[in-house]
Amino acid sequence: MAMQLFGVPGLPEITPGSDLATMIVEAALAAGTPLDDGDVVVVTSKIVSKAEGRLVELADVQPSQFAIDWSTPWDKDPAVTELVLREAKRVVRQVGPILITETHHGFVCANSGIDQSSSGAHGRVVLLPLDSDASARRIRDGFASAGVDAAVIVSDTFGRAWREGQTDIAIGIAGMQPITSYIGQVDPHGHEFRVQALCTADELAGAAELVKGNTSRVPVAVIRGHVWERDDNATIAPVLRDQSRDLFR
Amino acid sequence: MAMQLFGVPGLPEITPGSDLATMIVEAALAAGTPLDDGDVVVVTSKIVSKAEGRLVELADVQPSQFAIDWSTPWDKDPAVTELVLREAKRVVRQVGPILITETHHGFVCANSGIDQSSSGAHGRVVLLPLDSDASARRIRDGFASAGVDAAVIVSDTFGRAWREGQTDIAIGIAGMQPITSYIGQVDPHGHEFRVQALCTADELAGAAELVKGNTSRVPVAVIRGHVWERDDNATIAPVLRDQSRDLFR
Repeated sequence: MAMQLFGVPGLPEITPGSDLATMIVEAALAAGTPLDDGDVVVVTSKIVSKAEGRLVELADVQPSQFAIDWSTPWDKDPAVTELVLREAKRVVRQVGPILITETHHGFVCANSGIDQSSSGAHGRVVLLPLDSDASARRIRDGFASAGVDAAVIVSDTFGRAWREGQTDIAIGIAGMQPITSYIGQVDPHGHEFRVQALCTADELAGAAELVKGNTSRVPVAVIRGHVWERDDNATIAPVLRDQSRDLFR
Repeated sequence: MAMQLFGVPGLPEITPGSDLATMIVEAALAAGTPLDDGDVVVVTSKIVSKAEGRLVELADVQPSQFAIDWSTPWDKDPAVTELVLREAKRVVRQVGPILITETHHGFVCANSGIDQSSSGAHGRVVLLPLDSDASARRIRDGFASAGVDAAVIVSDTFGRAWREGQTDIAIGIAGMQPITSYIGQVDPHGHEFRVQALCTADELAGAAELVKGNTSRVPVAVIRGHVWERDDNATIAPVLRDQSRDLFR
């Protein structure tokens, strides 16, 4: 099995209403690497958010007293804290200047995934897509309209428990299931595999980061040669561990 | 930037004392994809453990009373539990039949990373390598003896907090730093990046899993086209979050 990964350079500036699927198809073509059936296309959530208008001017945000009280000693912007809380269904950890939340989607991450950097202007932040599976589906549908059957992953960069360094993971998916299950399968010696389910989507998102790079402006990567089974009902939901099964929340 | 990944098939059965580096060099050559300078070679920890003789016959293990008492109601083998405890510096969570430990290396994982499946025989388990950085270094040195300057990652399959599905991550490294830091760098608008440090080693290990596959018998993958800076003092230590900085341990 061999796999190729490459970034899609040369995307135009993304603004609210941008047709990402068409832009990606055209940029890949212009780069001499047109999209192909069977590709997995990984799209950084930030450009998805920008295309969907998930930008907020901090000056327009009225922070709550709780947001003000907690932000001040840590020299944080209360307007950002207010948005973090609004994007969360609950606070998972609030220790020192760190605020880890569970977003309305069910992602556990720092600051509800809000991005204060490189939003294209000072005083403006980028929120996660409202429904990242729907975002992935729209892009996949756009590819289909251009005649390409590609799976789509919307990725973001999250921290983890126990390990330093962030990694890119999947927050939305379309066309393929995010988890590959080995439950019930046995090895050549008749033992069940220790590994029962792999989060292929997170491995694909992380692999894509390696060719996108966080500091370069290549927010889209193509993975070619990964075999996936078409499933138009796939969502990221199977990756979200229910709180009742989670020993660390 | 483009990257290629391929598995290295055709490795012979690994036994204690096997010279992994030479076996990998020869298998890659025989497969028509010889190793090259600049490659990152990801080796599944299980074959490293086998080559290093990290196999234990369960019949030889005398379980403690604590191991017996906890194992019995959960229908677990007390000898395995005993090994899990011996491989751990402490128990992080022990809930129902789940035993999550911090290994002597500092990895937080289920069952101290002990593998009961596909160990080549019933009644035998595979422990993690004793010093997985040293294992990676030995393989890298073996490649150097064959004239190839390649970075080496020893990988294993671990679960995570909050998210279902396991992923392959790095437990040992040689030749390159595991973390890429962006601290102090600014984007085109002058903002500091939200992402400050990426665990490239984990992304590489996860990417390698996609071409190795957990059920196939391809325990080695080569990543070509990833740019890394040579550092012969690199270890996995920077990835291990200190307990004092960890909100989830």
